[in-house]
Amino acid sequence: MSTPDTFHRDPARLLPVDPTVRAIALDLYARVADAPIISPHGHVPPSLLVNDEPYADPVALLVTGDHYVTRLLHAGGVDLADLVVGEAGRDARAVWRTLAAHWHRFAGTASGYWIEEELDGVFGITTPLGPETADAIFDEIVTALARPDFRPRALFERFGIELLATTDDPLDDLAEHAALASSGLRGRVVPTFRPDRYLDPDAPAFGDDVERLLGATGRPTDFAGYLGALEERRAHFIGHGAVSADHGIEEPFTVDLDAAEGARLFRAVLAGTADAAERRAFRGHMLVQMARMSVDDGLVMTIHPGVLRNHSTTTHARFGPDTGHDIPVAIEFTRGIRPLLERFGLERDFHLVLFAIDETTYSRELAPLAGFYPSVYLGAPWWFLDAPDAIARHRAAVTETAGFYRSSGFIDDTRAFLSIPARHDTARRVDAGFLARLVAEGRVRLPAAERVMDDLVGDIPRAVFKL
Amino acid sequence: MSTPDTFHRDPARLLPVDPTVRAIALDLYARVADAPIISPHGHVPPSLLVNDEPYADPVALLVTGDHYVTRLLHAGGVDLADLVVGEAGRDARAVWRTLAAHWHRFAGTASGYWIEEELDGVFGITTPLGPETADAIFDEIVTALARPDFRPRALFERFGIELLATTDDPLDDLAEHAALASSGLRGRVVPTFRPDRYLDPDAPAFGDDVERLLGATGRPTDFAGYLGALEERRAHFIGHGAVSADHGIEEPFTVDLDAAEGARLFRAVLAGTADAAERRAFRGHMLVQMARMSVDDGLVMTIHPGVLRNHSTTTHARFGPDTGHDIPVAIEFTRGIRPLLERFGLERDFHLVLFAIDETTYSRELAPLAGFYPSVYLGAPWWFLDAPDAIARHRAAVTETAGFYRSSGFIDDTRAFLSIPARHDTARRVDAGFLARLVAEGRVRLPAAERVMDDLVGDIPRAVFKL
Amino acid sequence: MSTPDTFHRDPARLLPVDPTVRAIALDLYARVADAPIISPHGHVPPSLLVNDEPYADPVALLVTGDHYVTRLLHAGGVDLADLVVGEAGRDARAVWRTLAAHWHRFAGTASGYWIEEELDGVFGITTPLGPETADAIFDEIVTALARPDFRPRALFERFGIELLATTDDPLDDLAEHAALASSGLRGRVVPTFRPDRYLDPDAPAFGDDVERLLGATGRPTDFAGYLGALEERRAHFIGHGAVSADHGIEEPFTVDLDAAEGARLFRAVLAGTADAAERRAFRGHMLVQMARMSVDDGLVMTIHPGVLRNHSTTTHARFGPDTGHDIPVAIEFTRGIRPLLERFGLERDFHLVLFAIDETTYSRELAPLAGFYPSVYLGAPWWFLDAPDAIARHRAAVTETAGFYRSSGFIDDTRAFLSIPARHDTARRVDAGFLARLVAEGRVRLPAAERVMDDLVGDIPRAVFKL
Repeated sequence: MSTPDTFHRDPARLLPVDPTVRAIALDLYARVADAPIISPHGHVPPSLLVNDEPYADPVALLVTGDHYVTRLLHAGGVDLADLVVGEAGRDARAVWRTLAAHWHRFAGTASGYWIEEELDGVFGITTPLGPETADAIFDEIVTALARPDFRPRALFERFGIELLATTDDPLDDLAEHAALASSGLRGRVVPTFRPDRYLDPDAPAFGDDVERLLGATGRPTDFAGYLGALEERRAHFIGHGAVSADHGIEEPFTVDLDAAEGARLFRAVLAGTADAAERRAFRGHMLVQMARMSVDDGLVMTIHPGVLRNHSTTTHARFGPDTGHDIPVAIEFTRGIRPLLERFGLERDFHLVLFAIDETTYSRELAPLAGFYPSVYLGAPWWFLDAPDAIARHRAAVTETAGFYRSSGFIDDTRAFLSIPARHDTARRVDAGFLARLVAEGRVRLPAAERVMDDLVGDIPRAVFKL
Repeated sequence: MSTPDTFHRDPARLLPVDPTVRAIALDLYARVADAPIISPHGHVPPSLLVNDEPYADPVALLVTGDHYVTRLLHAGGVDLADLVVGEAGRDARAVWRTLAAHWHRFAGTASGYWIEEELDGVFGITTPLGPETADAIFDEIVTALARPDFRPRALFERFGIELLATTDDPLDDLAEHAALASSGLRGRVVPTFRPDRYLDPDAPAFGDDVERLLGATGRPTDFAGYLGALEERRAHFIGHGAVSADHGIEEPFTVDLDAAEGARLFRAVLAGTADAAERRAFRGHMLVQMARMSVDDGLVMTIHPGVLRNHSTTTHARFGPDTGHDIPVAIEFTRGIRPLLERFGLERDFHLVLFAIDETTYSRELAPLAGFYPSVYLGAPWWFLDAPDAIARHRAAVTETAGFYRSSGFIDDTRAFLSIPARHDTARRVDAGFLARLVAEGRVRLPAAERVMDDLVGDIPRAVFKL
Repeated sequence: MSTPDTFHRDPARLLPVDPTVRAIALDLYARVADAPIISPHGHVPPSLLVNDEPYADPVALLVTGDHYVTRLLHAGGVDLADLVVGEAGRDARAVWRTLAAHWHRFAGTASGYWIEEELDGVFGITTPLGPETADAIFDEIVTALARPDFRPRALFERFGIELLATTDDPLDDLAEHAALASSGLRGRVVPTFRPDRYLDPDAPAFGDDVERLLGATGRPTDFAGYLGALEERRAHFIGHGAVSADHGIEEPFTVDLDAAEGARLFRAVLAGTADAAERRAFRGHMLVQMARMSVDDGLVMTIHPGVLRNHSTTTHARFGPDTGHDIPVAIEFTRGIRPLLERFGLERDFHLVLFAIDETTYSRELAPLAGFYPSVYLGAPWWFLDAPDAIARHRAAVTETAGFYRSSGFIDDTRAFLSIPARHDTARRVDAGFLARLVAEGRVRLPAAERVMDDLVGDIPRAVFKL
């Protein structure tokens, strides 16, 4: 059914419109358009590739679990329950029609662009989504999904993924990663150590989780046992190919403590007698401890701060976490991250990648920090900012201070597997456009821009993530 | 005298310069250039349209009371007293000459652009303002103002205003609105409930004002009486066509309290025994109460936060409020507005429009909130940000997260009646340019952009403000 | 050896690429391209021009002491010690080769652009810097530096510097400035009063410094003596041509106190008994005192706030201050600067220039303040923001509210003498591009833009700095 939509397939999409800049950008983009995808941080479940089962339907593929999509439908008045296939006898087609009916709400959004890219790039569907076309598009996807080349492993290889990092619980046995490593998949899938629940006394099951951690590693219930357990699990991850440890925290606040005070706080937070300031200090100190472990074991440390999770208690109670109402807050790094950097910021092989949703930190704090500390790298624009204009704003905000070589390379950070190529392609196009403008304005010579373009999708992420 | 100034009348003014983008933008703009004006929030006094008297002179028309204009003259060294006609024998022509002498200071400002638009669009004057042309332009305006088609009601209809909301005191009898409703004016003029002075214990005459409120409604001096009085006055406003209640506050801070604690705080703030934290809690709780009333009676709730009023005590003492020295402060919504949203954020027919001058909240907080909560709408760029580049920054900051359909449509928020068409035209042009870029970059298909363009000046404000 | 690189010498570099805008921008830029340089704030040591000795080598010229350059090399993994000529037998050529090996890191940075401008503009070297060309470029610069026309005074006159302000300690006898004044140099070199170390109780040697100040002026150790000493030294500076007093502070926080409380705090901070809040109040009060002195003696007051100095204690201990790890922090002006403005903000001849690295303050606080208070001027984009995109963002953020005539004109604030022409040229180009867009978008008439362009490099800085 797909009628050609030459407009959408404009090979220059996302590039600056000015003909001079666009011509340069097209050449730069062409250098990397087909480069392998390096995805050193994200949330694709490894089981997807282990099991390699066909996607159930277009909704499972493009809607369910993609809280970028479901939140905007919710904002448009759709109850989240109405997006669950099987709920109240609802079938996938009905949910798909809901998406189509609200599709105008996605105009101009990153999610809208990605889904159109996926429909076209993966399925060759260029018909605009809408109430009249919903059923035909649904059927076309269903037909494709039945074919073996639309199974996850086939797509993984078709996407040209060289490395995909998942995000995993420290107690995960990583059996799925082991299975993938010996499965003949073209491309590495590596785990990422994500210990938040074991480090934050305010996490819902902190005490139980620490107990499980100590039990699993046979460690005594004291601070040294706790640190040893974390180190042991990191080693387990490294043994399964992990390159980084990730920290999702509300504020980038770090505290350096001596061993005795660390031990005292550990006892207090476990006993539930620590007050808010002590719990905050413990969290902040554990970031310093994780940095120490990174210095010791070489795992790249990534920090994703500044999000208040589960803003709507009612929604969280009904639908659980990651349902679209995590809302950013203002943060600051200069003072908050200083204790960590005072300890480890000058360590030669320590890599610390700092992400932010609060754009004010880009030019004010992150570029100056990454422009001095050899350990600090600028994380790619994250979450709500992983979108064309926001990516361009990020480059404009940091490059004049820190250049390109203090940035991390693109990070997709997604649980929407199908969107990975579209997201990386978006970043490549926006970076090509940004560089092309610098060339056209006489600020960067073309050969220098070409080297930067190549490195942004290759040497830079490989160096930052020690690949 | 007006010699043609073909440059200024460039039909593509404010649109992006790139020819490809401009061509698309011109087509999009043409769809809405003559659409009726919907102005759901502003400060035009209803008496202007009831009395329908000719403007006294060009100064009364364009300078007096427009603190956008007077503040920049003041910054340029002009004493505010020297802008008052009649003061020290000063006539309007002298003030007009002062404006002309300082006109270069307005180059690049929103006010400068609007006034040029008004001179041209309303009076057909395209001669540049300056010391040499001041008298001739003054005379030309004086001549026009004597004509019946330059009286306020004639201008109202010529401007194509479909709806104009005023901002009114809760105890206003709204007789002027009643008079307007039966006056045969083509277009609705509706009141807006603005209760700040009755809700803020730190307002200068809070106790007296509450007493007047209770007296006017015959209510007892207790919290239930106070809430009942507010509800009764809201009903009075609704009876006169009001669609919204507006709140101008220094910080978007809300507090949910039980009835007993609310009543206790009410007694304490009235008695003057409440400390700063209690007064803040009372203010924050009254926002939650106003949200509750909006859920009950359907008035759209609009919040204009983050301005420290009357920064210069000396100026306030000499010239009163609204004289150009209200200065914005940093704000945050994610935590501050959460108690209100926890109570009412998921209510189906509750509409909460959040404005901000602190641009940092756009991508960080407001777009994520409006991208999830069905009740939350992104207020149009406000006050100092109601200007071409700032409007474009706003769209770029929020659209990738929240799309177009979570925004309020343009709000002029002005007391400068003559500037209303220029302001709405500015927003239409900037939105057309923004959309045109998305089309030219292959991010939004043209038919989708056309629908957005139409809806931004029609269905969107009508839906948000329940018109 | 220099082969022509016509690309880099594009006369339209840094201007917008769109042909329509670029044509207007070129015309505007041409008006001011060769205008004299007014540099009312910077850090060039006067001894450079007094001694007028040849630069030792290319490293002394372009690397040593330019912490914009050394910090990015450091971030790239170079030990700062490895950039010191003479250290461990290292010669200048070795350091130059290090710069060349890391030159790709400077692509897109302000420093990278300036150095290319300097190589070309001062030495006629257009060969790209890199490992293969490092030696030849080094030799070419060495040859040039031996010539008399590459000595500092010759360069000063070749650069067309009309006025250069240095930054000096209040106890400096200013003999070098006196020598320069009578040396026949074409162009003024004036001192700037910078009293931070004498005003901040938390400065490392505060007590000793105050004692030296009182000793040098023969004043008693009390608050009146201290204020008198500062006034006396300001008079000394004015006698040597100073036009401004500069304040580098962590936060723009001001406090108005009566004389008794000021005196009490003075005794407490000198005795070391003041707590943190009292030390902060003293600092904040001394800014008000400095404003009072500016009202009295006419020195323009400039404030550079919001930088946490010496972020890396280890680096500071090894290499001292100004070594690339001063990191900005969030600041606010609206409340913090208010006490000062309540006292002196309406004084007719008081000039207060407010700088910021925290871009969030531009549209939110600084433009509204400068758009009302006749004393407040918008400082040019500072430090990390002294770069093409950042300068353009600044104009876009403030102009719609405050116009061009409330800004300070460009300030280079540099200790890198050779970069002065490149920096001023950058600002002129970016301003021309910004203005050209406003013209092309029909927002500013061409004659008005021409006047603004001329004034930005002439009348505006002359008026703001009372030249």
